[in-house]
Amino acid sequence: MERNIRRLADYCAQHRIALWPHTKTHKSPEIARKQLAAGSPGITVAKVGEAEVMADAGLRDILIAYPCYGPQKWQRIAALAARTNLSMCLDSVEVAAPIADACARAGVKVGVMIEMDVGLHRVGQPTPQRTLAVAQQLNQMRGLQLQGIACYPGQLKGPPQTMEAALQPVNDKLDEAIGLFKKAGLRCDRVSAGSTPTAYYTHLLPRVNESRAGTYVFNDKNTVSEGHCSYDDCALSIHATVVSTALEGQIIADAGSKTLFTDRLSTGGPGYGHVVGHSEVVVEKFNEEHGFLDVRQSARQFKVGDRLRIIPNHVCVVVNLHDQLIGARRGVVETLIKVAARGKIQ
Amino acid sequence: MERNIRRLADYCAQHRIALWPHTKTHKSPEIARKQLAAGSPGITVAKVGEAEVMADAGLRDILIAYPCYGPQKWQRIAALAARTNLSMCLDSVEVAAPIADACARAGVKVGVMIEMDVGLHRVGQPTPQRTLAVAQQLNQMRGLQLQGIACYPGQLKGPPQTMEAALQPVNDKLDEAIGLFKKAGLRCDRVSAGSTPTAYYTHLLPRVNESRAGTYVFNDKNTVSEGHCSYDDCALSIHATVVSTALEGQIIADAGSKTLFTDRLSTGGPGYGHVVGHSEVVVEKFNEEHGFLDVRQSARQFKVGDRLRIIPNHVCVVVNLHDQLIGARRGVVETLIKVAARGKIQ
Repeated sequence: MERNIRRLADYCAQHRIALWPHTKTHKSPEIARKQLAAGSPGITVAKVGEAEVMADAGLRDILIAYPCYGPQKWQRIAALAARTNLSMCLDSVEVAAPIADACARAGVKVGVMIEMDVGLHRVGQPTPQRTLAVAQQLNQMRGLQLQGIACYPGQLKGPPQTMEAALQPVNDKLDEAIGLFKKAGLRCDRVSAGSTPTAYYTHLLPRVNESRAGTYVFNDKNTVSEGHCSYDDCALSIHATVVSTALEGQIIADAGSKTLFTDRLSTGGPGYGHVVGHSEVVVEKFNEEHGFLDVRQSARQFKVGDRLRIIPNHVCVVVNLHDQLIGARRGVVETLIKVAARGKIQ
Repeated sequence: MERNIRRLADYCAQHRIALWPHTKTHKSPEIARKQLAAGSPGITVAKVGEAEVMADAGLRDILIAYPCYGPQKWQRIAALAARTNLSMCLDSVEVAAPIADACARAGVKVGVMIEMDVGLHRVGQPTPQRTLAVAQQLNQMRGLQLQGIACYPGQLKGPPQTMEAALQPVNDKLDEAIGLFKKAGLRCDRVSAGSTPTAYYTHLLPRVNESRAGTYVFNDKNTVSEGHCSYDDCALSIHATVVSTALEGQIIADAGSKTLFTDRLSTGGPGYGHVVGHSEVVVEKFNEEHGFLDVRQSARQFKVGDRLRIIPNHVCVVVNLHDQLIGARRGVVETLIKVAARGKIQ
C-alpha cells in the first residue's frame, strides 16, 4: 500500500499534478494522512458524512466529488465549510443554489467545480456551452467560489496502449470549455480529472492539474485485468478458509458476496476474484457467505481448514463491507485500520 | 414487516413446522425477538460473531447454519454453548472434530445436524450413505449431540406451480437418509430445510419439521420476480434522491452499488431494483454512489431533488451494507433498528 501511494505521488509530483486521492477506496483517515504525507494537498470524498469523519480526524482540505442534495446536507456542508477548506463537484444550479444559500447564511464559502461529462455519461453537463452556462449562474451566488471544471473519464479503462488516443476527445472538450470560461472572464484555476485506470496518463491531459484517483492505493483484479498493474501491486486481499470439500471438483470458502462482493467490472472471463498462488482456481460464484471455488483444474488436494488469500475484483466495494482492515508488513500484522467513514447514508 | 413475520409464523404453526428464521436478512436482535414472539422456538445465524451478538441480546436458542472452522471460533463456540442452547449445521468430521474437542474440554455440548446436499451443490454430503457415515462418526464425539439432518434446497426458486414436482427428489433423498439413520440407531429429531422461495411449500416435504427461511421478513424484487409475493409485501426499500438530470433520457440517483448492491439473482430482465410507482423506470447500472436510471419510457419529468423509493433485487446483502434501518408504520417513522450483527468477519 505504501509503495502504491508513493508511486502515484512521485508521478504526480513529476508532472505537477495535484493528487487529491479519492478516499472512497479506504474510508480511513489514517490512510488519508499517509497520502497527504506523500505530497497530496487534500483528499476527495463521496459524501457529506465521509467529509465529516475526515474533518473530525483533523483533515482540512476536502473535496466532495458528488452533487449532494438535501436540507440536512445543506446545513452540514455549511458547517463543514466553516471548519475546513471545502470544495465540491456538481453539475447544476438546482444542486448548487441551496448549498450557496446555506453557506451565505453561515457567512462561509464553498469552492465549486462544474462537472462536465467527458464520455462516461454519468453526471456532468454534456457540452462546454452548458458547462459555462452553469458556471456563470454559480459565479453570481454568494456562498460559492467558482474554482474550475471537474470531469471523470471513467469510461477509459485500458489497455494502456489505447489510452493516448482515447484521451484526445477529453482534451478537446476541456480545451473548448476552458476557452469559454476565460472568454467569459470566469476563473478556472482547478481542472480536476480522475480514475485509477487513467492515473498514470494524466500528463497526456495537459489542461488537467488535479487527479482524484482512488483505487490505486490498493489495486484489485480489475486494475490488473485492465493492464495497469500486477498482482504484486495488489495491497488488499481477503483471507478465507476452506469449510467444505464434500462435493467433487469444488471447494467452499467462507467468503461470499457479503465479503467479496459480486462486481465484475472489466475483469473479463469467469471469476469473482484471484486466488493468490492458485490462478487455476476459479471463484465461480457466491452465495452470501459461501464462495464456490471450481478446483477441477488444480493439482492441489484442498482440505477443510486450508487458508486462501483472495484478491477481490473491485476493492472499493469490498472495503465498504468491512469495519476494519488488518495492516501487515512482510506477513507480520502491524496495525488495525478502522474503516471509519463507511456506513454513512448521506 | 410484521405482516410478513405473522404470515409465515401462522403457516408454520398450521403445519407444525418449527420456524427458525435466518436472521442473516436483518442481523437485528430486535427483529429476531419479533420472530420469536410470533412463535419461533429459536433463530438461525450464519456466523459465530452473529450468534454472539444475538446471545448478548438475550436470545437463547441459536442455530449456526454454517460449517465454521478456525481455532478462535472453536473456543467461542464452546463459550456460546455454555450460555445458550446452541446447534450447528455442518457436513464433515474435519469441521466437527475440533468443535467437539473444544466443547468436551469446556464440559458443554453443541447440537449438530449433518448437512446433506439436495441439489444446490453448495455444502452437504452428496448421498444419504455419506451423510450417515459422517453422522456415525460425530455420534461418537463427546461435546456433540447428534440431532438430525439439515438441507437447503436453494436451487428451487419457483414459479410456485413448479414447486411440488421439484420438491419430490428432495423428499426421496430425505426419506432414504432418515431411514438409514433409524436403521443405524441414530437420532434424527430435527430435519431442517430452508429458503424463502420454498417456505410456503414446506408442508410438501413431510419429513421436514424445521424451516430456516430468512428473506421473507422483508422480501425483495427477487422474491416478487419468482412469484412468491407482490411488491406490497416488500417491507424494505431504499429512499434515494435525484441528484443529476444533466444528460438526456437518464437521471442519476444517490444510491449506487454501495447502497443497493449488484446482485441479479432471478430477477430476470434488466434492472437492479424496482422503483416504487415507476415500474417503467429501469435501474440500469450502478457506480459506487451513482444509480443510473433509464427514464426514457417514463412520462414523468424528473427533477433534481425528487425522492425515489427503490426495492432492491436482494434485500439480505443490502441490509448488510447499512448500520441501521429506519422503521416506519403507515409513513411515520417509529423506530431506528440497529443492524447489530453486521460487520462480523468470523
